[in-house]
Amino acid sequence: MERKASYRIAVLGATGAVGRRMVETLERRNFPIESLKLLASERSAGQTIAFRGEQLPVERATADSFEGIDIALFSAGATTSQIFAPEAVKRGAVVVDNSSAYRMDPNVPLVVPEVNPHTLDDHQGIIANPNCSTIQLMVALHALREFGLEHVTISTYQAVSGMGQKAVDALREEVAAWQATGTIASTIFPLASQDAHYPQAFNVLPQCDIFLDNGYTKEEMKLVNESRKILELPDLKVSPTAVRVPVLYGHAESVAVRFATPVTPDIARARFAQAENLVVVDEPSAAKYPHPQMAEGTGDTFVGRIRQDLADPHTLLFFVVADNLLKGAAWNAVQIAEELVKRA
Amino acid sequence: MERKASYRIAVLGATGAVGRRMVETLERRNFPIESLKLLASERSAGQTIAFRGEQLPVERATADSFEGIDIALFSAGATTSQIFAPEAVKRGAVVVDNSSAYRMDPNVPLVVPEVNPHTLDDHQGIIANPNCSTIQLMVALHALREFGLEHVTISTYQAVSGMGQKAVDALREEVAAWQATGTIASTIFPLASQDAHYPQAFNVLPQCDIFLDNGYTKEEMKLVNESRKILELPDLKVSPTAVRVPVLYGHAESVAVRFATPVTPDIARARFAQAENLVVVDEPSAAKYPHPQMAEGTGDTFVGRIRQDLADPHTLLFFVVADNLLKGAAWNAVQIAEELVKRA
Repeated sequence: MERKASYRIAVLGATGAVGRRMVETLERRNFPIESLKLLASERSAGQTIAFRGEQLPVERATADSFEGIDIALFSAGATTSQIFAPEAVKRGAVVVDNSSAYRMDPNVPLVVPEVNPHTLDDHQGIIANPNCSTIQLMVALHALREFGLEHVTISTYQAVSGMGQKAVDALREEVAAWQATGTIASTIFPLASQDAHYPQAFNVLPQCDIFLDNGYTKEEMKLVNESRKILELPDLKVSPTAVRVPVLYGHAESVAVRFATPVTPDIARARFAQAENLVVVDEPSAAKYPHPQMAEGTGDTFVGRIRQDLADPHTLLFFVVADNLLKGAAWNAVQIAEELVKRA
Repeated sequence: MERKASYRIAVLGATGAVGRRMVETLERRNFPIESLKLLASERSAGQTIAFRGEQLPVERATADSFEGIDIALFSAGATTSQIFAPEAVKRGAVVVDNSSAYRMDPNVPLVVPEVNPHTLDDHQGIIANPNCSTIQLMVALHALREFGLEHVTISTYQAVSGMGQKAVDALREEVAAWQATGTIASTIFPLASQDAHYPQAFNVLPQCDIFLDNGYTKEEMKLVNESRKILELPDLKVSPTAVRVPVLYGHAESVAVRFATPVTPDIARARFAQAENLVVVDEPSAAKYPHPQMAEGTGDTFVGRIRQDLADPHTLLFFVVADNLLKGAAWNAVQIAEELVKRA
């Protein structure tokens, strides 16, 4: 990418929960923008979205939409990425893709800017934004990597907004129905595309995304495979359980990590405190620890409940929280764009 | 306890969430009852509770209330148990105590009837009902103990009813306030008795009960210590994280267990299926697995998401759910009473 005073940016999927936050984040960060083009499917084209005091029109995306674009932020699903990313790259754009389409492609950097920004040095036009639940885990684990990461056991508490704006609306509707009638008829949780539906309001569902043949969900395997790629630890052991909870915004993760060497909570707390964009909230005596509503609307990752395993000084337990739509998606993508600008 | 055709039963704490379910469960099980005395604090005395078509009065508990009682079911908190349990025993009653007061007393059996009913053979008048989150874990782990239980890593998803009826009402009020005003002012979560309060509606709080000096909560240490006592495995490694979620009824647990020998999911599923009062719900291809609303109102424990750890054939992951007020409290206590009757 050529160095410039300001850049021509496109956001594909601009009307979605993540796309809207990409636009907001570009504005909040005062990103050096010459022009901003908002793109979506035919269904959403014609809407407008506020940016720097103007209502920008949302256009239907075509291959030619990317003509003259420097950086394109994609958040429109894997199929759409596979259609448009090569077209955008062909026209000279760098694509930061929030879908799963290219994450495990060996030619595509999978980037958490606090963790592996060096991998941006030799991209081939496409850069992948990791999955939301992976990103916040990476920010925390990276801070402790000097102790030798061996085995990560993780159980997640994931917000419905990870399924998009429709799921946010659906949880509100389930709660309203329950208030009015005492019953809930779910049609979207845990997954709109399958036959079996369960209430999500006042319920916990151990299914995020589809099941794979090995009995794990796609979300769980993302935690395994993306963590290994980002940390460059192909043999890292990851034991994941991904669970959807009736929270609107903010994923939480209960994490147990075994290290090659013993690590005390004090040392871990010090390393976490030094890490970029990681906030330590860990005062049990004052009942202070991270929770989703603390993270909502922020770009930071929060860590607390840091304690040694009772039986194994090589293992630490802690609790990690971040806003899944910001650090888990939109903000991480804009951070990558900022890194690209720095490197141009 | 003397063998009789029917027994004189007392329920202490009869107006609480668990106490009411003890009365309902005694009726539903057609327990051989000669007389039922309902006891509570002065504040709750004077209320009536339905039993077998009659409205029974709730009396203020005194030491003499237990005169002539055969079995007393206690669910009125640890302090009240410590006051009244010795008085009840002195008057010839057997006490089944749902509080934490006596659980770790070496002279008191801590009983999950599916797991260690033999410990009822030499009680000294008091029998302890384990903590809700422990009971359902025990039912599942016991089914696999032949493989050598070594290390249990557990993250919980606990319903607010574990904090009593007030917390159920408070969550309903938080949701109503949020619907009406978009904001939530919490005064009871995660713990009424502390200064720091956070919303529980649409939020996840990694604190159940008070924090101890080691950085773990009391709830987490109950999982460790009670599991070891019930399973008679004093060296069992348990790594617990207890988290409160916005669910009314039903605790869920994400569990990873390392065994002395390799165990396949098929073998585990077969052992679970043979276990008493344990229901296997485990068909990923049909999106079938346990969730709290499945367990609500039942006395069973449900297990699913059974899979091998990706890196370690000695480790299994699974998801366990039960109604915390029934199997986790009232039903387990009545089961103990039924065992006492069988043994009389």
